[in-house]
Amino acid sequence: MKSLLLVAHGSRRPQSNDEVRALTADLRVRAGAAYGSVACAFLELAEPSIPDGIEACVQAGANEIVVLPFFLSAGRHVAEDVPQLVQQKQRQYPHVSIDVVPYLGAADGILDLLLAQAESFGKARRACR
Amino acid sequence: MKSLLLVAHGSRRPQSNDEVRALTADLRVRAGAAYGSVACAFLELAEPSIPDGIEACVQAGANEIVVLPFFLSAGRHVAEDVPQLVQQKQRQYPHVSIDVVPYLGAADGILDLLLAQAESFGKARRACR
Repeated sequence: MKSLLLVAHGSRRPQSNDEVRALTADLRVRAGAAYGSVACAFLELAEPSIPDGIEACVQAGANEIVVLPFFLSAGRHVAEDVPQLVQQKQRQYPHVSIDVVPYLGAADGILDLLLAQAESFGKARRACR
Repeated sequence: MKSLLLVAHGSRRPQSNDEVRALTADLRVRAGAAYGSVACAFLELAEPSIPDGIEACVQAGANEIVVLPFFLSAGRHVAEDVPQLVQQKQRQYPHVSIDVVPYLGAADGILDLLLAQAESFGKARRACR
């Protein structure tokens, strides 16, 4: 079973964490049958932690886990903290394939998404005239 | 002339700010003729500031400025700080149309981009076998 784990920074503001959880719920629906489970985890300031998030995937029966950093830039968190936490769980479960994919900000489609977002507002405004 | 201003939080880590500037340069190329200028500005910790970024657009001849928050969640920065700074410049230049569009994390295409990013790695790995 293949799991997708969206990993966010976590915020002191509960609504921001809930926003990540809501996005994850939407992602679960959008993913359809592509993943047996879709969940989120937080580097700090919110639960579950990244190790706990991976643990839950394993307990749910995952033999393949894709960890997707929900970050816009490649700071220390993306470069060091997330991989370190993942490696610890990888050592604990060597039979599970756990891959950290490049962070969201590095996605090929980010430019097109930004341009679409900039344009969508203009379209909505024109439609209201 | 229509300008696109990508507004990021700004980081103490210079590389993260440079990453936003590099993304903006790529965005400028991708936008082609859709915008007369494409630039970035930072809420804090980096230059130019948001007021200075808007000022540069106006001085470049913009009569329409699209401000796009490069943020993943709707915290205080997105909800209050960015709009307040924009409104100050809007009052200074009432003849310029300055619109803050919804932040990147609220984009319709974010789910598809996340799923594509999760999948792209698997494809790259399979291609290497």
